[in-house]
Amino acid sequence: MTESTAHGQPGTGPVGPVDASVVPRYAGIATYARLPRIEDVPRADVAVVGVPFDTGVSYRPGTRFGPSHVRESSRLLRPYNPAQDVSPFAVAQVVDAGDFPVNPFDIQEAVLEVERAATELGERATRIVTIGGDHTIALPLLRAVAKQHGPVAVLHFDAHLDTWDTYFGAPVTHGTPFRRASEEGLIDLTASCHVGTRGPLYSKQDLEDDERLGFSIVSSEYVEEHGAEAAIQRMRDRIGDKPLYISVDIDVLDPAHAPGTGTPEAGGLTSRELLRFLRSLGDKHIVGADVVEVSPAYDHAQMTGIAASHVVYELVTLLAAQAERMRGAE
Amino acid sequence: MTESTAHGQPGTGPVGPVDASVVPRYAGIATYARLPRIEDVPRADVAVVGVPFDTGVSYRPGTRFGPSHVRESSRLLRPYNPAQDVSPFAVAQVVDAGDFPVNPFDIQEAVLEVERAATELGERATRIVTIGGDHTIALPLLRAVAKQHGPVAVLHFDAHLDTWDTYFGAPVTHGTPFRRASEEGLIDLTASCHVGTRGPLYSKQDLEDDERLGFSIVSSEYVEEHGAEAAIQRMRDRIGDKPLYISVDIDVLDPAHAPGTGTPEAGGLTSRELLRFLRSLGDKHIVGADVVEVSPAYDHAQMTGIAASHVVYELVTLLAAQAERMRGAE
Amino acid sequence: MTESTAHGQPGTGPVGPVDASVVPRYAGIATYARLPRIEDVPRADVAVVGVPFDTGVSYRPGTRFGPSHVRESSRLLRPYNPAQDVSPFAVAQVVDAGDFPVNPFDIQEAVLEVERAATELGERATRIVTIGGDHTIALPLLRAVAKQHGPVAVLHFDAHLDTWDTYFGAPVTHGTPFRRASEEGLIDLTASCHVGTRGPLYSKQDLEDDERLGFSIVSSEYVEEHGAEAAIQRMRDRIGDKPLYISVDIDVLDPAHAPGTGTPEAGGLTSRELLRFLRSLGDKHIVGADVVEVSPAYDHAQMTGIAASHVVYELVTLLAAQAERMRGAE
Amino acid sequence: MTESTAHGQPGTGPVGPVDASVVPRYAGIATYARLPRIEDVPRADVAVVGVPFDTGVSYRPGTRFGPSHVRESSRLLRPYNPAQDVSPFAVAQVVDAGDFPVNPFDIQEAVLEVERAATELGERATRIVTIGGDHTIALPLLRAVAKQHGPVAVLHFDAHLDTWDTYFGAPVTHGTPFRRASEEGLIDLTASCHVGTRGPLYSKQDLEDDERLGFSIVSSEYVEEHGAEAAIQRMRDRIGDKPLYISVDIDVLDPAHAPGTGTPEAGGLTSRELLRFLRSLGDKHIVGADVVEVSPAYDHAQMTGIAASHVVYELVTLLAAQAERMRGAE
Amino acid sequence: MTESTAHGQPGTGPVGPVDASVVPRYAGIATYARLPRIEDVPRADVAVVGVPFDTGVSYRPGTRFGPSHVRESSRLLRPYNPAQDVSPFAVAQVVDAGDFPVNPFDIQEAVLEVERAATELGERATRIVTIGGDHTIALPLLRAVAKQHGPVAVLHFDAHLDTWDTYFGAPVTHGTPFRRASEEGLIDLTASCHVGTRGPLYSKQDLEDDERLGFSIVSSEYVEEHGAEAAIQRMRDRIGDKPLYISVDIDVLDPAHAPGTGTPEAGGLTSRELLRFLRSLGDKHIVGADVVEVSPAYDHAQMTGIAASHVVYELVTLLAAQAERMRGAE
Amino acid sequence: MTESTAHGQPGTGPVGPVDASVVPRYAGIATYARLPRIEDVPRADVAVVGVPFDTGVSYRPGTRFGPSHVRESSRLLRPYNPAQDVSPFAVAQVVDAGDFPVNPFDIQEAVLEVERAATELGERATRIVTIGGDHTIALPLLRAVAKQHGPVAVLHFDAHLDTWDTYFGAPVTHGTPFRRASEEGLIDLTASCHVGTRGPLYSKQDLEDDERLGFSIVSSEYVEEHGAEAAIQRMRDRIGDKPLYISVDIDVLDPAHAPGTGTPEAGGLTSRELLRFLRSLGDKHIVGADVVEVSPAYDHAQMTGIAASHVVYELVTLLAAQAERMRGAE
Repeated sequence: MTESTAHGQPGTGPVGPVDASVVPRYAGIATYARLPRIEDVPRADVAVVGVPFDTGVSYRPGTRFGPSHVRESSRLLRPYNPAQDVSPFAVAQVVDAGDFPVNPFDIQEAVLEVERAATELGERATRIVTIGGDHTIALPLLRAVAKQHGPVAVLHFDAHLDTWDTYFGAPVTHGTPFRRASEEGLIDLTASCHVGTRGPLYSKQDLEDDERLGFSIVSSEYVEEHGAEAAIQRMRDRIGDKPLYISVDIDVLDPAHAPGTGTPEAGGLTSRELLRFLRSLGDKHIVGADVVEVSPAYDHAQMTGIAASHVVYELVTLLAAQAERMRGAE
Repeated sequence: MTESTAHGQPGTGPVGPVDASVVPRYAGIATYARLPRIEDVPRADVAVVGVPFDTGVSYRPGTRFGPSHVRESSRLLRPYNPAQDVSPFAVAQVVDAGDFPVNPFDIQEAVLEVERAATELGERATRIVTIGGDHTIALPLLRAVAKQHGPVAVLHFDAHLDTWDTYFGAPVTHGTPFRRASEEGLIDLTASCHVGTRGPLYSKQDLEDDERLGFSIVSSEYVEEHGAEAAIQRMRDRIGDKPLYISVDIDVLDPAHAPGTGTPEAGGLTSRELLRFLRSLGDKHIVGADVVEVSPAYDHAQMTGIAASHVVYELVTLLAAQAERMRGAE
Repeated sequence: MTESTAHGQPGTGPVGPVDASVVPRYAGIATYARLPRIEDVPRADVAVVGVPFDTGVSYRPGTRFGPSHVRESSRLLRPYNPAQDVSPFAVAQVVDAGDFPVNPFDIQEAVLEVERAATELGERATRIVTIGGDHTIALPLLRAVAKQHGPVAVLHFDAHLDTWDTYFGAPVTHGTPFRRASEEGLIDLTASCHVGTRGPLYSKQDLEDDERLGFSIVSSEYVEEHGAEAAIQRMRDRIGDKPLYISVDIDVLDPAHAPGTGTPEAGGLTSRELLRFLRSLGDKHIVGADVVEVSPAYDHAQMTGIAASHVVYELVTLLAAQAERMRGAE
Repeated sequence: MTESTAHGQPGTGPVGPVDASVVPRYAGIATYARLPRIEDVPRADVAVVGVPFDTGVSYRPGTRFGPSHVRESSRLLRPYNPAQDVSPFAVAQVVDAGDFPVNPFDIQEAVLEVERAATELGERATRIVTIGGDHTIALPLLRAVAKQHGPVAVLHFDAHLDTWDTYFGAPVTHGTPFRRASEEGLIDLTASCHVGTRGPLYSKQDLEDDERLGFSIVSSEYVEEHGAEAAIQRMRDRIGDKPLYISVDIDVLDPAHAPGTGTPEAGGLTSRELLRFLRSLGDKHIVGADVVEVSPAYDHAQMTGIAASHVVYELVTLLAAQAERMRGAE
Repeated sequence: MTESTAHGQPGTGPVGPVDASVVPRYAGIATYARLPRIEDVPRADVAVVGVPFDTGVSYRPGTRFGPSHVRESSRLLRPYNPAQDVSPFAVAQVVDAGDFPVNPFDIQEAVLEVERAATELGERATRIVTIGGDHTIALPLLRAVAKQHGPVAVLHFDAHLDTWDTYFGAPVTHGTPFRRASEEGLIDLTASCHVGTRGPLYSKQDLEDDERLGFSIVSSEYVEEHGAEAAIQRMRDRIGDKPLYISVDIDVLDPAHAPGTGTPEAGGLTSRELLRFLRSLGDKHIVGADVVEVSPAYDHAQMTGIAASHVVYELVTLLAAQAERMRGAE
Repeated sequence: MTESTAHGQPGTGPVGPVDASVVPRYAGIATYARLPRIEDVPRADVAVVGVPFDTGVSYRPGTRFGPSHVRESSRLLRPYNPAQDVSPFAVAQVVDAGDFPVNPFDIQEAVLEVERAATELGERATRIVTIGGDHTIALPLLRAVAKQHGPVAVLHFDAHLDTWDTYFGAPVTHGTPFRRASEEGLIDLTASCHVGTRGPLYSKQDLEDDERLGFSIVSSEYVEEHGAEAAIQRMRDRIGDKPLYISVDIDVLDPAHAPGTGTPEAGGLTSRELLRFLRSLGDKHIVGADVVEVSPAYDHAQMTGIAASHVVYELVTLLAAQAERMRGAE
C-alpha cells in the first residue's frame, strides 16, 4: 500500500498515481489509473488521451461516453504489472492528457481535429494511447503516426475487418479506417494483421479486398481451433519487427466479456486471451495504440470498462518499458 | 455494402435481406436477419419461425418474448458466412415465417397447435428453424419431423437432459420433450446425443433412464477435460449419418454467455465452442432445428439474443448449403 | 376480447390491429399497436412512421433505436380509448408506415430525406404521427406540413426550448429545430407554445430569443404552482384555433417517468399530466405530430417506451376522431 | 432501535419481527417484515401468505417470483406505523405463512389449490393478506372469503377492469377474476369499486359489462382531475360499510412507481396516493386483501417490491388495528 | 451556446464552467457542472465538495461512489437558472473542491477528518455544499458550521428522522446525526424542521424524542393532503430567519424519482416538489448545505444522480445569489 | 422428480431439501439449496452459514447482501452431483445455519463475533461452508479452524493475494486475512497456495512478502498458458495431504462470469475451470471452506449468485462425501 514511494521522490522521478493509502480508490476526480494530468508534469513518455466520438458508428452509438467510462473503470489499477514484470508508472512518466474535443456533427471535421490534436500532443508526449470513441478515429491517429514514422505495421484486434468501403456516402466511418489508411499509404502492406475477426461478412469479396489492402488474418476460429499459442506465433510472424501500431476494438472480445460495445458478435476472444496476445509484444517497436468502441450504456457493472482499462494498462506497460529501454540505449 | 446484389436480380434468385446500404440496420420492422417474410416469396428453402411460448417452464418464465428478442438481436447479421464459406441467403431462399400463435393457458392444446402449424409450414418451406419459446415445443416439432422422415437422430445441446418425467401432473413440459419423443418412437435410439449437459441431477437414475431413452452424453465436463475437438469427434461418431434434428437450448452456454435464460447452470460452453460444434455438421443430413429458452427479461445488452441469433445463423447456413447441394443433386 | 370485430367486416371498414384473441400480444412481428402495415391497405387516414436518427444529439445518443423500441412497447394497446371515448382504429384507417431510412452520417442530407419522405407519405396518408429519432427531425416535418398548410401553431412539449442556435458549426441539430422553423416562416408566431420546459439555460437571452421566435411558455414550474387545469387553459388560450402541429419530446416527462432519453432534466411532468394535456385538444385542427427523443439503451423495463406509445396513442386518437369528423362534414 | 421490546415480553404478547438491534436488517432468511413464521406461534390474527403463480398472465410473466421479491423488499419495515398511529405487530399477532405451493401447469387445478389452502389457513389465522402471483388468484381467494362472509364489497385498485371474458378458451385468467366472482355471487353488486383504472379497452362494451357485473369506477383520470380527496370520498361512498375485500394490482401505480409488473399502463397513481387511499379505510370491516402482479425481472432496485411491501404493510396495519378493536369489543 | 462569455473576461469575474461550445458536455474530466477546480482559482464563494463515505449505513451501502456519480450526472447543467433568475456561476465564484479523503474503516476517525477538512475548506470558500456519502457526515459538517455561526436552524429533507440512537454500539451513524448534533448544542431547537418524512418508525417514542431534540415535522403525508404551498408555508414559519443549514437526504424523493439510495421508502416527494421547496428559500441566510445518500449501484440511467445534481444546483444558486447580495451590502 | 425419496424415510436418514415435486423451486422461503434449517435437525455433518458483512472492503461494498443473494440463486440445485457421483444431501446431513449477525460498524468486533459464532456452530456441525461477506471473514474462520486442527493448508482462489498490510490504519480488512493468519501461525507455510491471481500489484515486494508468508502461486496466466490440467497438478502438489481450508473469492472468476463482486480484474478463470479445480480435491482432508465477495447490486440476472451457489455445492459435496467416508472408517 505504498505505491507512491515506489517511484521515488518528487522531482527525482516520474509523478505516479494518487496514493491509495491516502486517498481511497473511489475518491477524487477520475483520471486514467488516477495518474497525473498532463498539465501537472513537464513532459510525458506516455500519454493516455480520450476521443469522445461516435458519429461514425453504423449501429449502436454511445462511444462518446467511452473515455469517461474507462477512466471511472480504471480506479483499481495498481502500479506494478507482474505479468510483464514492469512498474510502468515508475519507469516512465505516464499521464492522462484529457480528451480531444471534437465536432460531433461532422465526421470530416472531427477527423481533421483528431489528427491535428494528436500531432500537437505528440510534441509533449513520446507515445500516445488513445481511448475511443468509435473506430473512425484510427484513421487520423494513423495519419499522425505515419507522418512521423512512415508506413507502420497495423496490428488490429477486432471482430470486424474495418476495411469496408463508403457507407451512406461517407468514406470515413468506423467500418473503413484501415481501407482508407491503406489507400493513403499509411500502413505496411506486408506486416499488418487482424486478430480475432469472426462473424458474417457482406461477401467473399470482403476478404479479397482486405488481403489486397495489406492484411492477413488470425481469426477467432483460428484461436479456437489451434490455441492461443499458435495464434500468437502467427501474429508475431506477420508483424515482424516493423514499427507497430496497435488498434484494439473492444468487440474483439466475446459479448460475454464486452457487452458494452456497438456491433457485438458472438464467438470472440476471452479477456485472458487478449491480455496474453498483448503481453507477447514486449520486444516490438510500438509507435502508438488505441482502444476503441466501448459503449457504456450497454455495459453492466463496468464489465467492458474494466476489460478496456486493463487493455490500456498492458499497452501503457509495453510503451513504458520501451521508453525505459530507449533511455537505456541513449 | 452491396449485400442485395449478392443474390442476383429479382426474379432470378432468392430474395435476400433488406439492403443495409439503403436502410440502416437499426431501421425498419424486425424480421430475422431482415429477411423477407414468407408472404413475400413464392416458396422457401428454409423458414425461420417463432413459437412464443413459456407455459412449460418450471423456473424463470419469459421465453414467450424470445422470438421478438432474437429478431431484434439479429439486425447485424450479414449475408456471407466465412466460417462455412457459404452465402446462405444467396444459395437458398430463406424467410421469416412469423410466429405460430399458440395457446398460453393449455400446454396440451399448444403442443397440438405447434405440430399442426409446423406441418402446414412444412408444405411451404423445405426446412424449418424454430426460435422458442421453451423446450416443450421440441416435442411437437419432432412429431412433425418424424411424420415426414421417420425416427431421427436428435443432437441436443443443453445444460439439462430434458428426459425427465411428469411434473405436477403435466406429462409434457420443458423438462420432458425427449422422454416423450423417445417413448413415441420419434427418435433414433442409436444416434441421439446430448452435448454440454452439466450440473446437478435428481438422482443417478436420471442418467440410466436417459441412456435407456436413447441418448449418449458429451458433457460440458468432457469438453473441459478433453477439448472441443475430441468432443466433436465423439458427437459425430454418435450421430453418424442418420437424418438429424438439432435442438439447441441456449442454456448450453455458460451464464456468462447466455444470462437470459430460465434455468441457468454454471460451467457451460462458450459461444465460440458452440458455433464450432455446429459448423462441424456440414456433411450431415439435417431435417430440422430449433433454438429455445431465450428469456429476454434477464438478458442484458442482448448478450443472449445475439448468441442465439448467431446460432440460428449457423443452422440456417447448414440448411441453405444442404438445399443447394440437394438442388445440385437433382 | 373481440377487438377485430369492432371495426366491421373486411372491406367494409378500416383494417384494425391483429386480433389478440387469435394471436397473443407478445407474438408476431411488431408494428405500432399491431396495426396493419401501410402496404396492406389502399389508403390511410393516419400513418404512424418512424425516423430512426440521432446524429443531431448533443449528449446521450441512441434514439435511432427509438422507433423499434416504441413499437415493441406498444403491443398492449387496445382499440378503444375511454378517455376520449373513441375507437381510433375503427373510425379511421390507422397504419404503420415503417421507418424512413435516413443518412446517419450527414444531418443536412438526412433532413432533406425526411422532408421528401414525409411529403411522399402525405400523399398516401392524410395525417402523420412520427416517432423519432431526435428532435432534429421536427424541422423537416414542419417544412412538409407548412408546404401544405402554411405556417402552423406549434405546441411543443419539452424540457427544453429547442430554439438554440448553431452548435459546433451545425445550424440544424436537436437543439435548434424551432429556431430554424421560425426563421423559415413555418410557424405561427402568435400561437406557438412550449409546455413543460424547465431546468438551467445558457442565459436570460435564451428566453428573449425564444419569445422573439414566436413562443410563449407554460413551464413545468407553472404546472407545479398553478395546477394542470390552469396550465391547460393557458396553453389552449395561446394556441387558439390555428392549424396545430404537436411535437412531444419525451423528456418533457420527469426522468422518473422517462429515464430513457438523451438530455433528462429533473422536475418534469408526470405521464398522467401529459396525457391530460393531450386529451384536452379534441377540438383543435391538428395537422401533424411527432414524439421524439426515446433512447432505449437507458430505458429500464420499457418505462419510457410505454409512456411514448401511450402518447402516440392519444395523438392517433385525436387524429382519427378528427378524420371521422371531417368525413362527417363532407 | 428497541423494536423487540415494543411488544412486551415473550409469552405475554404477540411475537414481533426479528430485533434489528441484534440482527441487521440485511441478515437472516427473509420472511415478510422479518416476522415470525406461522409455525412458530400458536395462532395468528393476520397472516401474510404468498401465492407464487403466473400461469394466468396474458403478457409479461414472472409474478411467480413475486412473493420472494416482496419479502426481500420488506426488510426495512419498522414496527410502528405513524400514518395510522398503530403498532401492528404489537397489537396483533402477524405472521408469515409462507407460500401456497400451486400447480404451475394447470390453472383450474391451481385455483382449486388456492381456495383449499386459503380455507385451511383461515382456520389458523383470522385474516389473510396474500402476495401474488398474478390476479387469477383473486377468484379463489374471494371464494374462500365468501364462504365465510357471504358476498363482499370488492375494492379493486388496478389499471385494468379485470372483468374480461374467456381468453384462449380459458375462463379463469388474470383478466377475468371479477367477472367470474360476480357471476358466482361472491361480490356485493352495490358496493364494489375499481380505483385507478385507465388506458385503452377493447370496446365500450367493456364498461357496460363491468357496470352490470357490479362495479363503479374511480378512474386514474378522475384522480388527476378532481384530486385524491374527492376520489377517496367517492370510493368510500361506494363501498359503504359492507364487508370489504381489498385487491391491489400493483399496476394501479404508474410505471414510474411500479415498473416491475406484467401489463403496465402509463398515467397511473403515485405510491403516495395509493397509500393515502388505503389509510382512509381504518373504519371499514375488512375481511381479506391481496397485493398482486409484482414481476421482479422488470424491477430495478426493488422499486416495485418496496412499493408493494408498503402496500402490504398498510393493509396489515388496518387488519391488526381491526383485530385489536374486535378484541376490545368482545 | 455562449456560456463562457456570460461571466466576463478572465480576471474580471468568476471563472465559469468549461465552454460547451468548445468542449462537448460528455468530454473532459468530470467536475461538478464542469466548474473549475478549487486549485485553479484564488478564492471561492461557493465550493462543492464530495465526501465519499458509507461506513455509517445500516442497509444498502454504496454512497462512497456518490460524489463521482453526481459529478458525472451534472454534465448537462447550464449556467443560468431561470427558476431563480440567477446565473450562479457568473455572480459568484463556484468551484469543485474535490473529495475529502476519509477513513473507510473507522467512523469516529472519519467524522474527525470531515470536520477538520470542512474547517480548512471554509478558509478558502465562503460557503460549502457537500455531496455525500451517507448521512453520518452531517454531524461533522454541523460541527464545523456551528463553530463559525453558533447553533443553526437545520432544514432537513429526508424520509427518516435521523434522530435515532446508538446502533450496534455506534453512537454516530447515518441514523443519528441530528440526535448527536442536538445533544451537542449545534442546532437551534426552535427552528429546525424535517420535511418529507414518512414510513414506519420503531415506536411512537421516536416522535417524542425527535420533538424534544428540536425538530418539527412537515411530513410527506402533509404534502399529499395539504399541498406543497401550505407545506412550504409551514416550513418557512418554522425556520424563521435563523442561520440555516440545509441537509437533503435524496431518499426524501419517492423511489420512483430516486431509486439509487440506501433506505428507500414508498410515498415520497417528487423531484418537482423538492426543487420548489428549495427555491422558496431565496430570502434565508444559509450557512451550508449537503446532499447525501446517493447510491449509484442502484441508480438506473442516472435518475437519482440527475435529481441530486439539480438539488445541488438549486443550493448553489441560493448561495451564489446570497454571496452577491452580501457583496452588494458591503 | 423424486428427490425427497432419494434420502429415505424421515428419521432413517438425513433430511433433504424441500421436495420440488410438491413445492415448486421458486416457492417458499429461501434457504441454501432449499435445505432444512439447522433448527430443524438434531445435528449436521455440513452447515452452510452466511456472514453478511462488508465493512472490510476497500472498493465496491455490498457483500452484506451476499448470503441472501446466493440463497435465492441456489433454488435450482438438485440433489445428485454427477460430476462427483455423490448425492450430498443423502449421504450426509447438510443444513442452512442462517446468518451470523455481526457488527457492521466495527471490524474488530465483527471479527471476534465471527470467530465466536463459528466455534459455537462447530459444536453442532462437523464442517462449515461460509458464504460471505467480504474476505475479512476468512481470518476469524481460520482462527476457529486452527483452534481445532492446528495450522492448515490454505487453498485460496482469488484474483488477489490478500496478503497485504494495514490500510487506513486497519490491520484487518478484506486485503489482509492471509497475512494476519500467517503471522498468527494459523496456516501451514509449506502447503498453502493461491490459484487464479492476476492483475496489477503495488510492487514486486508484494510477491516477496507473499512467498515469505507461506504461499505459492498458480496464477491465471499459468492456467492460460499451461492449461487447467497442469495447473491442477501444481496446486495438488503444493497442498499435499495437509488438513485443508478452501477459500474462494468469487473474483477469481473473470468479470464475464462474476460481474457482481467488489474488486473485479479482467483475465480470470471461467466457472467451468473453477468447478474443475474444486472437483479434483475429492481425496483431500478438508476442514472448512468459504465463498466470499459476492456483491449483488452489481449482479445482473444472478450470474454471480448462480456461479457462487454452484461453488458452494461442489464444496458441500466434497464435505458430504468426506463425512460419509469418515463414518465408513469408524
